[in-house]
Amino acid sequence: MPTPKKQDWRDRLHEIIYEADTPEGKLFDVILLIAIIASIILVMLESIKHIDQRWHSVLDAGEWIITILFSLEYIARIICVRKPMKYVTSFYGVIDLLSTIPKYLSLIIAGTHALVALRALRLLRVFRILKLARFLGASNYLINALKASRAKILVFLFAVMILAVIFGTIMYLVEGEENGFSNIPKSVYWCIVTLTTVGFGDIAPVTPLGQFIATIIMILGYGIIAVPTGIVASEYTSQTNSSKGQKPNDAALNPMSSVQLNSQSCPNCLADNHKDGAEYCYNCGYKLSND
Amino acid sequence: MPTPKKQDWRDRLHEIIYEADTPEGKLFDVILLIAIIASIILVMLESIKHIDQRWHSVLDAGEWIITILFSLEYIARIICVRKPMKYVTSFYGVIDLLSTIPKYLSLIIAGTHALVALRALRLLRVFRILKLARFLGASNYLINALKASRAKILVFLFAVMILAVIFGTIMYLVEGEENGFSNIPKSVYWCIVTLTTVGFGDIAPVTPLGQFIATIIMILGYGIIAVPTGIVASEYTSQTNSSKGQKPNDAALNPMSSVQLNSQSCPNCLADNHKDGAEYCYNCGYKLSND
Amino acid sequence: MPTPKKQDWRDRLHEIIYEADTPEGKLFDVILLIAIIASIILVMLESIKHIDQRWHSVLDAGEWIITILFSLEYIARIICVRKPMKYVTSFYGVIDLLSTIPKYLSLIIAGTHALVALRALRLLRVFRILKLARFLGASNYLINALKASRAKILVFLFAVMILAVIFGTIMYLVEGEENGFSNIPKSVYWCIVTLTTVGFGDIAPVTPLGQFIATIIMILGYGIIAVPTGIVASEYTSQTNSSKGQKPNDAALNPMSSVQLNSQSCPNCLADNHKDGAEYCYNCGYKLSND
Amino acid sequence: MPTPKKQDWRDRLHEIIYEADTPEGKLFDVILLIAIIASIILVMLESIKHIDQRWHSVLDAGEWIITILFSLEYIARIICVRKPMKYVTSFYGVIDLLSTIPKYLSLIIAGTHALVALRALRLLRVFRILKLARFLGASNYLINALKASRAKILVFLFAVMILAVIFGTIMYLVEGEENGFSNIPKSVYWCIVTLTTVGFGDIAPVTPLGQFIATIIMILGYGIIAVPTGIVASEYTSQTNSSKGQKPNDAALNPMSSVQLNSQSCPNCLADNHKDGAEYCYNCGYKLSND
Repeated sequence: MPTPKKQDWRDRLHEIIYEADTPEGKLFDVILLIAIIASIILVMLESIKHIDQRWHSVLDAGEWIITILFSLEYIARIICVRKPMKYVTSFYGVIDLLSTIPKYLSLIIAGTHALVALRALRLLRVFRILKLARFLGASNYLINALKASRAKILVFLFAVMILAVIFGTIMYLVEGEENGFSNIPKSVYWCIVTLTTVGFGDIAPVTPLGQFIATIIMILGYGIIAVPTGIVASEYTSQTNSSKGQKPNDAALNPMSSVQLNSQSCPNCLADNHKDGAEYCYNCGYKLSND
Repeated sequence: MPTPKKQDWRDRLHEIIYEADTPEGKLFDVILLIAIIASIILVMLESIKHIDQRWHSVLDAGEWIITILFSLEYIARIICVRKPMKYVTSFYGVIDLLSTIPKYLSLIIAGTHALVALRALRLLRVFRILKLARFLGASNYLINALKASRAKILVFLFAVMILAVIFGTIMYLVEGEENGFSNIPKSVYWCIVTLTTVGFGDIAPVTPLGQFIATIIMILGYGIIAVPTGIVASEYTSQTNSSKGQKPNDAALNPMSSVQLNSQSCPNCLADNHKDGAEYCYNCGYKLSND
Repeated sequence: MPTPKKQDWRDRLHEIIYEADTPEGKLFDVILLIAIIASIILVMLESIKHIDQRWHSVLDAGEWIITILFSLEYIARIICVRKPMKYVTSFYGVIDLLSTIPKYLSLIIAGTHALVALRALRLLRVFRILKLARFLGASNYLINALKASRAKILVFLFAVMILAVIFGTIMYLVEGEENGFSNIPKSVYWCIVTLTTVGFGDIAPVTPLGQFIATIIMILGYGIIAVPTGIVASEYTSQTNSSKGQKPNDAALNPMSSVQLNSQSCPNCLADNHKDGAEYCYNCGYKLSND
Repeated sequence: MPTPKKQDWRDRLHEIIYEADTPEGKLFDVILLIAIIASIILVMLESIKHIDQRWHSVLDAGEWIITILFSLEYIARIICVRKPMKYVTSFYGVIDLLSTIPKYLSLIIAGTHALVALRALRLLRVFRILKLARFLGASNYLINALKASRAKILVFLFAVMILAVIFGTIMYLVEGEENGFSNIPKSVYWCIVTLTTVGFGDIAPVTPLGQFIATIIMILGYGIIAVPTGIVASEYTSQTNSSKGQKPNDAALNPMSSVQLNSQSCPNCLADNHKDGAEYCYNCGYKLSND
């Protein structure tokens, strides 16, 4: 970071909101985290009838405070980004909007209030906030292991789905409507409930043949549960091993653990995880402010 | 592939239907895949009462289109294979027939219509189609690991079955008919539901002694679940390791990953997974068409 | 095996019944296996009311044939062993007796007939029969892995039990009798049902606090399930590795896989797994008949 | 241990109560263990109505004996420690008090008797007693593996909680009060029941959309169960391997397995796990009595 540059207030705001390396940036993230959790708790309390009846005005006031705070944050985010449309149409942009609009809509149209609960989706931002702090440190191997085994687990889930459709259809034919297997989708749902060893028991086979097939499904599910576990365990072990036996020139294998990343995100295109000391965004070439 | 040979239309049809290396072959597989999935969705929609009542004629028309397509495919498969009886009596041959016949039968005999759902078994062909494309690439280790641990998992499942019979019998004696354990097979079924940690709750022990024995069964099941997972994880790790440390002369250990296989199947005996450049079928010695 | 010795009929009978190396011994084991499975199926069919009512006389006749066969086998086992009391008081001796007596008793006292189901315990002998054949081959590592992790799994189960008692007591205080947690043992039973992720649902928390504590128990159970799996997987991997890297002088580590054992058991003390070519029983010093 | 020192009776009592290296100390621990287990069984029996009604006076007498024993132990513990307040305010000090007080209170105020069940928390002391004996020997690796993977498992549980809140909120919106998802906390509770594959079935989705989302949650839970297992298995393997390949100068990696610890705890500050031959407490510098 050789020559510090003069920043206008939008760059500064961008740094506070989108990055976590400066004290102000960290403080903003902590406050945002608390606000998100508080908003979730408010929504939860409001959903409990007898609490809502007694404390309705308090909860409603809290809702409005949170909603206005989130609205201000949303506006600030739009102002300080170079390409606002990119943020507005991004995943987090849509969620941020969805977590404020229902409350305003509830003034005009009754019944949309329940959608306030969609605010829970903002919790996903917690991953983003934490990712930049201890998340990367603690679970780097884990994420790599999951990425490495993603294709295999997808193939595996695909096989489970096919099994569920086939056995679900067979159970529908065997048990029939009178025993709760009222149509094939419901029967497939039951089959997944069984294969995953959840077993609600809202639907359960009644005929001896149905119970026999259920036994086969359960034992299959029992054997199948071993597969993703084995894959993840194995990939995780190899991730750990490869990093332990890592020589300097093996760094390319595990770039995240050997290269220092910082939490700033490009003011232009919102790409993050820039390398420390990077002068330009790796994604759009926009000049980054390193000071 | 030194000298290309002239093919008659049956050889060409065989190549399209049974192989996936030519563009036409791939296109055929994709269309077949879509048709199978469409037929499953049709059967599912039909099984939902209120949808069937409103859209019966549309769904029925769709059924007939699918049935006729599958019939044509079935006939084409018989025509272009040298030994049609081999296909007709093969596993996929029987399923292909079973997925068309019930619809025709429903014209003559009422009530057989439900068997259309057997068409779901055609989904198994998806494994065959995908096996030849990305399946082999993504989950080669997985299949080898499962094959390597097959014997052990079978021995293990066998032990689970014996435990289930013994504990099922004991629970039948302890709980008796009045608590839902109305006969030994049902009691064994309950025991497998418990050992696999599915736990529907349609039957549950009521007496203190029964609940105590159930506790033992659950803890056993809990400990037992570790075994197949451990086996698969371990085999999978050793599969991955052995291929990483693989030298050229170790190829014999993992033939599938070091030898190029293609998707063509012998027009005579339907054996597939021929080596690239193979001139004769490894199974029946029939001359393969390499062009 | 230098000089074959003359055997009297008791030694011969002993070889047939207790060993599996001669053709006659194998045949005896196969017949015994079939008889045991047939007896289990008979007991199962008898426990199903409507089958028992229609086929009572046939099933009863079958029962008597099986009972007499087992009685003859029991007598033969006593005759051909040098120390009959050792067999009679052994685990298998008691089971063999228990599987015949109830049928005879049912002639004198009514109601003891249900105990015939105890015959299912004879299935345990299957382990003994199979152990000598393919069991040793296929699951040697598995048994060693389980033995190696036995102490750890016991400590682990002990910890699970303490957790269950503590959380069970807390749930009893929180939920109380009116919600099904009618006493502490039942509450502990519910706690184990939850910790093992079986979840019958016959008892379920109703109060918000109870549901919150249940959540903690479930997540604990979820994390805990990882532990025995990890132990077995790890032990199994190290078993496999140690045998792969085994040099000739490492044989002592895995004696079972490098020393040939045979299936004969000492006519005097019933100890089995003698080394091939052993002249005397390793347990009691009795001269073995090697021919 | 060069020069044995004269001990006053308080030091001797301290040695008996807080340590397990002398025969008296071991005997005390065994008696304490038996008393704790007996007290748990008493509380359990008392909670079963029909047993309590018949044997009330016997159980009550037993309760009083246990309570007085525990009170005496509590007083002895206070007397022989240099800083009694430290013990009284410590975790075990509070539990030890809580396990005696309710019984005395029951003389004055009715209804507090149920709190006697809190005595079950004393079972936690079993960990402390056993830790010093075979626990350290058998499950040292296990504890290290759990410690090493603690951060990752916490991050993982955190991710599970966020998923549960998001999906719980969605299910509340989709299913609504009429299907049992009466408020968001209850819906989150259901979501954790499903993600952990417990599946009580006290609440179950009824609408097709709800069942479809439940399917996604179950498959997620199924895939997720692989993660902690993989982590623990991998950490456990690396713990075992690092100790097997351990050279003398690698001792620092596994201090617990290479340094002899003894069971004495400092009479001043109660810190335990002192190294053998340590002259002063590593925590407060108090002179330890090594004789």
